[in-house]
Amino acid sequence: MNGPHAVVLLSGGLDSTTALYETLRCGKTVSALTVDYGQLHHKEIEYAKRTAASLKLRHEIVRFSLPWKGSALLDASVMIPQNRPESAMGLGIPATYVPARNTIFLALAASYAEAAGAAEIVIGANALDYSGYPDCRPAYLKSMAQALTLGTKFGDEGGTMVISAPLVELSKKEIVELGARLGVPFEHTWSCYKGKEQPCGRCDSCLLRAKGFKEAGLTDPLLQTCRGEL
Amino acid sequence: MNGPHAVVLLSGGLDSTTALYETLRCGKTVSALTVDYGQLHHKEIEYAKRTAASLKLRHEIVRFSLPWKGSALLDASVMIPQNRPESAMGLGIPATYVPARNTIFLALAASYAEAAGAAEIVIGANALDYSGYPDCRPAYLKSMAQALTLGTKFGDEGGTMVISAPLVELSKKEIVELGARLGVPFEHTWSCYKGKEQPCGRCDSCLLRAKGFKEAGLTDPLLQTCRGEL
Repeated sequence: MNGPHAVVLLSGGLDSTTALYETLRCGKTVSALTVDYGQLHHKEIEYAKRTAASLKLRHEIVRFSLPWKGSALLDASVMIPQNRPESAMGLGIPATYVPARNTIFLALAASYAEAAGAAEIVIGANALDYSGYPDCRPAYLKSMAQALTLGTKFGDEGGTMVISAPLVELSKKEIVELGARLGVPFEHTWSCYKGKEQPCGRCDSCLLRAKGFKEAGLTDPLLQTCRGEL
Repeated sequence: MNGPHAVVLLSGGLDSTTALYETLRCGKTVSALTVDYGQLHHKEIEYAKRTAASLKLRHEIVRFSLPWKGSALLDASVMIPQNRPESAMGLGIPATYVPARNTIFLALAASYAEAAGAAEIVIGANALDYSGYPDCRPAYLKSMAQALTLGTKFGDEGGTMVISAPLVELSKKEIVELGARLGVPFEHTWSCYKGKEQPCGRCDSCLLRAKGFKEAGLTDPLLQTCRGEL
């Protein structure tokens, strides 16, 4: 790959892995970035490492913890919502929201990109089948790209820092279909917020993933790999 | 203090400590945030801890390292510019620039603020006597505040996330004068990029600090504390 250099935020989940494959399909040179922010579903990071290694990508991991927590993904004492109907997912900000998480991700990616001379960041944010996260919306991402342009050398040089969110307006069904076309190894992507041995099948993330596979008419190979029944 | 709650980014330097004192003067409830990003002048963090403890502030420290480095502040093999005339400091981005550092700081502060219910972040960024850092300029800070509003719950609730930069248009002389009026313990602030036992007196940060004290007609007590001669 000799195309323009992009830093891809790779959590190890279905969306970010599909965004990574889509970026590679476009012929871009990819450096992957994974952020270990103390998420309880730490397991996704192992999947990210596996994917990056299998594609022989340059891959960096930044590790820290957020002492203020403020999310069910960081604090085991806060319950992860379960079995919510889809209509409820878009109402309000759920307990699984990590305050300003995508802003932290994009800031770190911008730093990596600027240091590596890449003027593009790719994020698998998805605003259609979303769970009420304010930091996944197109208006936010557009505004953040403007700030990153002004706050890095790219603005000084008359250029721009681009944030690409190739999945932002796709449904989960369309993401699964795109991933299938691109050959994404779904069995090596992790979505469950709980990060146990098998996906819980009840958190918003499991429910949306299952809906995507069902509507795409495909079977989720992760469930077979895990020998788990949802 | 029972005023509005603000998260103050406290590096332990002259500027951020003065910004902190100014925020307290305004009657705000302050939570302090220090970021240990692997800076070689790690010593500043000890000063930040000391200041926060002396003021009995809630104080969080987030620690990580940026594997890509990309700055003389992170990579001991990159030389820190020395004895540069002030006219040269504003030309181009210097080796001490840490890619997207203030964006990372503001993103973490936004996360802390959102989790703690604070709608304001205070940063000691300074654009007048600056050293060519794109992430210190008012246009960048304004753009970042817009992105943070859109990307956090504040935007959802019809509010805003405010970034205050009380020093942004002050000269170093004015910052020293303000700090002196506010009773900032200058001897407990650290500016030198080198982080040795005594300030080097030659890096941009030492030179600007010395200029500020000189023009304000004051003696820098840090130099007496350190028994160092600049």
